[in-house]
Amino acid sequence: MFECDLPDNIKELSVAQLKELCETLREKIITTVTTNGGHLSSNLGIVETTVALHHVFDFPEDKIVFDVGHQCYAHKLLSGREKDFSTIRKRGGLSGFPKREESKYDSYNTGHAGTSISAALGIAKARDLKGENFNVIALIGDGSFNNGLVYEAFNSLKPLNTNILVILNDNGMSISPTVGSMHEYLEILSNDSQHNLKLKKHANIFERFGFSYNGVYDGNDVEAMIVKLKEIKDKLKTQSVILHIYTKKGKGYSFCEENPEGTHGVSATGARQGEEYSHILGQTLTELAEKDSRIFAVTAAMTPSLGLAHFFEKYPDRSIDVGICEEHATILCAALATQGIKPYYAVYSTFLQRSYDEIIVDICSQNLPVTICIDRAGISGADGETHQGVFDLSFLSCIPNLTIAVPKDGDEFKKILEMSVRYEHPLVIRYPKDCRQSFGSGEADIEVGKWEILQDGDGDIAILACGERALSIAFRAVKLSGNKVKIVNARFVKPLDSELLDNLDECNIITIEDNMLTGGFGSLVCSYFSESGKIVKSFGYIDSFVPHGGIGGLMDDYGLNVNDIADYIKKCV
Amino acid sequence: MFECDLPDNIKELSVAQLKELCETLREKIITTVTTNGGHLSSNLGIVETTVALHHVFDFPEDKIVFDVGHQCYAHKLLSGREKDFSTIRKRGGLSGFPKREESKYDSYNTGHAGTSISAALGIAKARDLKGENFNVIALIGDGSFNNGLVYEAFNSLKPLNTNILVILNDNGMSISPTVGSMHEYLEILSNDSQHNLKLKKHANIFERFGFSYNGVYDGNDVEAMIVKLKEIKDKLKTQSVILHIYTKKGKGYSFCEENPEGTHGVSATGARQGEEYSHILGQTLTELAEKDSRIFAVTAAMTPSLGLAHFFEKYPDRSIDVGICEEHATILCAALATQGIKPYYAVYSTFLQRSYDEIIVDICSQNLPVTICIDRAGISGADGETHQGVFDLSFLSCIPNLTIAVPKDGDEFKKILEMSVRYEHPLVIRYPKDCRQSFGSGEADIEVGKWEILQDGDGDIAILACGERALSIAFRAVKLSGNKVKIVNARFVKPLDSELLDNLDECNIITIEDNMLTGGFGSLVCSYFSESGKIVKSFGYIDSFVPHGGIGGLMDDYGLNVNDIADYIKKCV
Repeated sequence: MFECDLPDNIKELSVAQLKELCETLREKIITTVTTNGGHLSSNLGIVETTVALHHVFDFPEDKIVFDVGHQCYAHKLLSGREKDFSTIRKRGGLSGFPKREESKYDSYNTGHAGTSISAALGIAKARDLKGENFNVIALIGDGSFNNGLVYEAFNSLKPLNTNILVILNDNGMSISPTVGSMHEYLEILSNDSQHNLKLKKHANIFERFGFSYNGVYDGNDVEAMIVKLKEIKDKLKTQSVILHIYTKKGKGYSFCEENPEGTHGVSATGARQGEEYSHILGQTLTELAEKDSRIFAVTAAMTPSLGLAHFFEKYPDRSIDVGICEEHATILCAALATQGIKPYYAVYSTFLQRSYDEIIVDICSQNLPVTICIDRAGISGADGETHQGVFDLSFLSCIPNLTIAVPKDGDEFKKILEMSVRYEHPLVIRYPKDCRQSFGSGEADIEVGKWEILQDGDGDIAILACGERALSIAFRAVKLSGNKVKIVNARFVKPLDSELLDNLDECNIITIEDNMLTGGFGSLVCSYFSESGKIVKSFGYIDSFVPHGGIGGLMDDYGLNVNDIADYIKKCV
Repeated sequence: MFECDLPDNIKELSVAQLKELCETLREKIITTVTTNGGHLSSNLGIVETTVALHHVFDFPEDKIVFDVGHQCYAHKLLSGREKDFSTIRKRGGLSGFPKREESKYDSYNTGHAGTSISAALGIAKARDLKGENFNVIALIGDGSFNNGLVYEAFNSLKPLNTNILVILNDNGMSISPTVGSMHEYLEILSNDSQHNLKLKKHANIFERFGFSYNGVYDGNDVEAMIVKLKEIKDKLKTQSVILHIYTKKGKGYSFCEENPEGTHGVSATGARQGEEYSHILGQTLTELAEKDSRIFAVTAAMTPSLGLAHFFEKYPDRSIDVGICEEHATILCAALATQGIKPYYAVYSTFLQRSYDEIIVDICSQNLPVTICIDRAGISGADGETHQGVFDLSFLSCIPNLTIAVPKDGDEFKKILEMSVRYEHPLVIRYPKDCRQSFGSGEADIEVGKWEILQDGDGDIAILACGERALSIAFRAVKLSGNKVKIVNARFVKPLDSELLDNLDECNIITIEDNMLTGGFGSLVCSYFSESGKIVKSFGYIDSFVPHGGIGGLMDDYGLNVNDIADYIKKCV
């Protein structure tokens, strides 16, 4: 219904026409996102700013880096992607994040928080070295602004001796409300400018870092934004500028404005809303915390999506959302554990990558009883390359002292959580978002490093599969093959169950995992059997980045295809 | 000569006696470090502060976290470890870093920068939860202060609602002179207090974050430090405090005072000072940069140790030391590469862990031609657990689009660097500190993914070894075994040389690597041959943290023992 009705002469439009354009963009975003799913309120809040930027600056010659990237929809619509906009987040369609491969208007791919200022500095420095002349803009929300990367980038602005514009989009929210003192500081700065106090260089940390500090109180006022951006465009010739704006997350859609946290990301129409592992985490941890006062929960800016909203309400003093500060969260847990507290850090698999060093040094080299609950592990779908949780088994398995659990289903997840309370070493528990299947009640208690035979075979082939998705594929493939095959719930990727492995009579071993093949569960099994003469065939994701799309289709195409596994089984027999 | 001559009643000593104690400690540190090697100037600068802390606070009830940990020697001497001090950094002796396993006076293990404030907050929060009552101190240098973690920790001080003391030890240096705007800001703050200006809450970012800001201009004045610390101890009951002190790095040893960068870490007496890979990097990159103006070098606070001091002098506009900000450094490189600049990021293996997420998301998912030169790979020796570079092959090999080169010797390193200039994808080159052996001239040009047969065998066994150390061990083991064994220079860990692998007639494959076994080179070879029936035996480090000690002895004991490999060869034949 909105096919190509956007004007192509944005630079010539009047303010009234630009306001109309904002409404058209907003309507288009709402219609598309409520159908396809995607980031809604973050995109709605930034419409006027995007229109003003496109009116004042010259894209794609000028470059813009969207921090995280979940606010680039209006930019996509204004840069020749209107026709394809209805494909956003679908397999083969537009990405929900900036993608250089998709358009020359996208300067830098993002997905994780806090990278935009560093990236803008790099682009600007390259411009200077090449003697070119364009503007570089980083657009960053106050949620991302908590991340340490922002500070690292600020700190090298002067040494790099280059000019950029940082637009700080302050809406008081990351996915959850923004926490921390920097947010309070931003409020004070803004009040100063409101009251027309002359902003003293002495007072403003941004000025110290080499920025000229500017503000627009209503970033949803397209006219005010244009006036200020024109003024700044001129300044940028000689200095770096930070523009602090206030916007309303979810602006223009009352449902979002009233519920910005719940509508940061929305599901596609008709998306299945079943049980999620996060619910089990929240419920179980809350129950366990009633009995054990040592239990403490840490998140980095997405408490509700991790299932911990109720825990945080019930135990405000035994929980903290540190903002988008995954490294700090990890150290905080390690330090709490040194004093006998029992910390649980819940985080998405893809964001766990941020605290890799701290997992090694702070948690594991000190052998501290921190439990990390890794949500959205495996292919996570529509957010694409930057959000797939497909590396964790590979990068975690080489860390000494670490135990890696991959529950077969919700019930087993609960049992592993119960076990974790008594466990005195570093532990990660890895699971996808949806909890769809049950594989029987199994043992009453989970023993670390012990697997479970779910189905016996005829002695030719044994399938070792870790996690619900891999087991589900194993059962389907076996059924499809028409053979009788042993299926093992390899619920610990580390340590492997050497007793069970040593007693496998089967010569053909198949491993299945919702993770990269390289360095993953299968590779551990290959190494285990490398001197045995057994044939090990591993199924997992091939060595490439997995783009956005539906989870099932991506799993099929990137290495976990039920037919392929069934064919292999038939070939082996 | 200094066996146990330190007083055990530090709290009762007069100022004059404490000053004398400082001199004794200083002498002891100089004598020991110039013999054993270790961190010298950082430890000398902080002697008076440490004495004052031990005089005023009650360790081990009160807890102190040393950021990085390279300034804890005086603390070790004052906490019952005088007798063992001469064993520091030696195998089985005291660690050069804080170690909880070593003493109850060490509250938290450190080694990498910027973690101390997060750790102190965690310890303090645990104290509050348990209703205990002790003081928690983080001691951090201005070099570490550039790291984003500091900002992340500050940002959650108020939400955590707990009290800590942060001592900011400002000596204008990390290993190299401190860079960046935060350092300038610190200077301004300090000047304010010097001139007795009332520090306006408005003016001071630390006050905003919830700290009471205090200063001692001469942190090497033990009396001034005691007065201020007593005052602060009282304040800590109700609020968090930051104490900004100035100290002289290398204080009291003119050789160090005049050369703090060169004496941050010193080598043990009699340590071999041969060719280093860093020299080859510096020389080659400088030569290449003469011909190719796209070449740009990035470091994170240790330019000279990485061999790039001359490059930085010669090309000030084509190089930047961003301070201890590994994540920012990585993104900066990725962004430069988007614009056709050719960035080289040089970093120690252990610190590369800090930018794992950015390697995946910013460099590799965008498939950008950034070259990362990974120095101090493999066991690095006397710094221990937190500094061994033994994980990189494991955590890097699962990343799509990434090529991993491991040169056999200095000459091949140079050739790979020459090749890298024309290479248009992400590339890492991994090497240890010392460059000791040459394995022949080999091919004139290096082709990505192509290995080299260095020695033919009699058809039974093939050894695939990556890097100088592994190859050196391979040749020694083969010689010791008395057999004729094929030895292959597996100079690319990714991609594997599938053509060579497919043409191996040998049934017994041995892999050798200076890396963890799990997920490392050997595991890639095991997976490659998992359906082939070949027997693969991998030698690398077993699944545990490698402590401090001599490199050779640690390699022997943790998995790379020449005798064991020779025995295995004999067993196979």
